[in-house]
Amino acid sequence: MERTEIAALGEFGLIDHLTKNIEIQNASTIVGVGDDAAVIDHFGKQTVITNDLLIEGVHFDLMYTPLRHLGYKSIVVNLSDIYAMNATPTQVVLGLAFSNRFSLEALDEFYEGVYAACEKYGVDLIGGDTASSQKGFIISCTAIGEVTPDRYVKRNGARKGDLLCVSGDLGGAYLGLTLLEREKQIFLENPKIQPDLEGEKYVVGRILKPEARKDIIDFLAQQEIIPSSMIDVSDGLSSEILHLCKQSKVGAVLYEEKIPIAEASRLAAYKFHLDPTACALSGGEDYELLFTIAQDDYEKITTTEMISVIGYITDDEAGSQIYTKGGNKHPITAQGWNAFK
Amino acid sequence: MERTEIAALGEFGLIDHLTKNIEIQNASTIVGVGDDAAVIDHFGKQTVITNDLLIEGVHFDLMYTPLRHLGYKSIVVNLSDIYAMNATPTQVVLGLAFSNRFSLEALDEFYEGVYAACEKYGVDLIGGDTASSQKGFIISCTAIGEVTPDRYVKRNGARKGDLLCVSGDLGGAYLGLTLLEREKQIFLENPKIQPDLEGEKYVVGRILKPEARKDIIDFLAQQEIIPSSMIDVSDGLSSEILHLCKQSKVGAVLYEEKIPIAEASRLAAYKFHLDPTACALSGGEDYELLFTIAQDDYEKITTTEMISVIGYITDDEAGSQIYTKGGNKHPITAQGWNAFK
Repeated sequence: MERTEIAALGEFGLIDHLTKNIEIQNASTIVGVGDDAAVIDHFGKQTVITNDLLIEGVHFDLMYTPLRHLGYKSIVVNLSDIYAMNATPTQVVLGLAFSNRFSLEALDEFYEGVYAACEKYGVDLIGGDTASSQKGFIISCTAIGEVTPDRYVKRNGARKGDLLCVSGDLGGAYLGLTLLEREKQIFLENPKIQPDLEGEKYVVGRILKPEARKDIIDFLAQQEIIPSSMIDVSDGLSSEILHLCKQSKVGAVLYEEKIPIAEASRLAAYKFHLDPTACALSGGEDYELLFTIAQDDYEKITTTEMISVIGYITDDEAGSQIYTKGGNKHPITAQGWNAFK
Repeated sequence: MERTEIAALGEFGLIDHLTKNIEIQNASTIVGVGDDAAVIDHFGKQTVITNDLLIEGVHFDLMYTPLRHLGYKSIVVNLSDIYAMNATPTQVVLGLAFSNRFSLEALDEFYEGVYAACEKYGVDLIGGDTASSQKGFIISCTAIGEVTPDRYVKRNGARKGDLLCVSGDLGGAYLGLTLLEREKQIFLENPKIQPDLEGEKYVVGRILKPEARKDIIDFLAQQEIIPSSMIDVSDGLSSEILHLCKQSKVGAVLYEEKIPIAEASRLAAYKFHLDPTACALSGGEDYELLFTIAQDDYEKITTTEMISVIGYITDDEAGSQIYTKGGNKHPITAQGWNAFK
């Protein structure tokens, strides 16, 4: 395999190389890559903006993460935040830092994934920064979207009686990560053993190549539903429910039996002697959408299997509770970030 | 001195702590910190956006950079890019990653600088991301600004005969860095020797606490001058002139004797046996504005001492040349990024 040192191009040669094939997809992109800043035109619309920082060794492990997938995921996790505002992503800005361990070919692979995601979601890469790092790969992505002033959805609009809904299924990404971590340990102990990922394609795909739920936003628009509150599930269902409740000053009831978990995730959980529900509640990175809707909108969402009603909103005083399959009631507790320490 | 571990707060407690005192300064800031994304309203204006990544050990050295100054500078260097588009910065998004070496008090100090810069330049901090890093402090800043469609200034509009102008003075930041690096080496060899920064306040201030040239943008607007091209001087004058020329497909003539260099920078250069002109040409981080204006606008800029005319724009074929004080002519060569390897 070829290896071109980045230093052979210099910073500006590198930027030219990485951005020379960009094709602008949005009329609102006036000035893209190549100036001090990009220019976006948003007549009568509002701009939505979000930022994520991904650090090698903390957020991803290059031992089992193909760079192409990492590039794809870097974009997708940011777009997920834009969709969680009920907005349409239009542009991304990408900052990258890397040590001389990375060749030009490695960066090209990363950017292939970036461009694949940009194309799939119709967003323009309009700028960024490249820097050297002493160690590791660091990704900073800022996504920009647009929404009309009457349509954006915050976390604080949930009202008593609203239905609590979630898209897709949960827990898969955490199980994929668990599997990859196990295979890594086996490989480190005995490099001759090939990874056994047969039958685990689903959960591995959930962690390595997540998608943002554009389809849910499109469906809600088509059904003329504006959720009363919405958040994307990046830290686990418990943590996200508590965010919505705290910001909306309400409580919630969640039914364990209603939490959508894919059959493949369930099987993977049993293999690791893990509780599938715990994986859904506390495992992160599913990038599904959690939202609340008025009861009047219930009929409209029964036409799709992409959305599950998992509970409802209560008074603030009632707190947030989960009813287990066994008929018990427990307070929902935040795990998320600190759970993985 | 108190030391609170970040882990004691958790991610969300930390974000609450760091952002609880934010006061929104711009009417266009609709949703700020605390949701999946921020929302900005820009009726009839265009949005300008830029991003910078700053890495400990590469872009800054915490041994001689106070965290408060670092926070201030992180914002300012991004605003400088917005001003270089002739736009007004309005919002910033800040991503931070740090190891457990940093306490809450250290982060507070950093944010003090961030908020001081936001206040001074009238921008709103509207979101971001905090993450842990295995090692070192990583800062990702995205700045957003606005401009009316007929006023933004790109790098590619310089025309033959235009005057080449620069704000303030150059080379000081590089000399400040050189001084701090020298004092660091002396300290490492003998920790008992106190740093000797007497009389060097100016150059040290240039590297540790740069300002963005809002005043120049205000002056140009007041004089009704729209530059034909503009860029901020972050990599050194040579590199920036070559950027403008390449993107505008023109050449340039630069007069060494016209390059503005502060007396304090000149003295510091002599002390280190460095050529002050070389420091201005190839030293970075001055964050001045380099721009071109039509000859007809010349009279208007003579009313200020903040702007120096340092040369003029020629045909592309003529290339970019510097006339030295000794009467010689040399092609301008890019240094910038690679010069400091």
